[in-house]
Amino acid sequence: MTAFTLSSTVRRPYGRTLADVRDALAGQGFGILTEIDLKATLKSKLDVDVQPETILGACRPALAYRALQAEPSIAAVLPCNVVVRSVDAETTVVEAFDPYAMIGLAGTTTLDDVAAEARTRLTAALAVVEQEN
Amino acid sequence: MTAFTLSSTVRRPYGRTLADVRDALAGQGFGILTEIDLKATLKSKLDVDVQPETILGACRPALAYRALQAEPSIAAVLPCNVVVRSVDAETTVVEAFDPYAMIGLAGTTTLDDVAAEARTRLTAALAVVEQEN
Repeated sequence: MTAFTLSSTVRRPYGRTLADVRDALAGQGFGILTEIDLKATLKSKLDVDVQPETILGACRPALAYRALQAEPSIAAVLPCNVVVRSVDAETTVVEAFDPYAMIGLAGTTTLDDVAAEARTRLTAALAVVEQEN
Repeated sequence: MTAFTLSSTVRRPYGRTLADVRDALAGQGFGILTEIDLKATLKSKLDVDVQPETILGACRPALAYRALQAEPSIAAVLPCNVVVRSVDAETTVVEAFDPYAMIGLAGTTTLDDVAAEARTRLTAALAVVEQEN
């Protein structure tokens, strides 16, 4: 875990955690716009084997729209990725791109409000995932 | 344009530019793993009208794999977004998430080589798009 993500480690298998993350994001109004099965992609393209891992592109449209109105370049870091990664059969990491890191990149204060709301919602979603342990 | 993106403005309609960007990325070995039609998404979810804009999730698998091996958290900013945005009927902006900004987030030097290669390839792709003017 590094400072640009919000991260949780749960004692739960990967598949169940992935389902729980989807539900928790939906509960905070995030739709999933994109989805990458990283394990399948790397197997297919490079024939390498990695642990199960999925990158979900989460978007709460009202927040995205406000961010884009304030700073069009923010599209380069949207949607907000939420990564679910298997560590072992009973342990899974959930890691989201921290909206504060996003706006740190943009170097503007015009996105402070939208980032704060996005971060509150992502943190709440991760807390729900943790509680389900 | 802000410091976390590589950006080009071309005098060419949006649709042609989007096609040119796809070709130029393919020429540098980037596959497109995700694609968001932002205009259609915002219309459908919020009933607002914005200029045509697409977010392409570009990935060169060998680079992604090297990055993930060095720093698993980098998944939170993958794939590399390349945004194509219409300004007016004859002007289009192409803006990619700068790999140097990605590794700046991670705060590690272990990704320097992979970021340098990704940046060289993205810059070359943008140069091809510009030349087609």
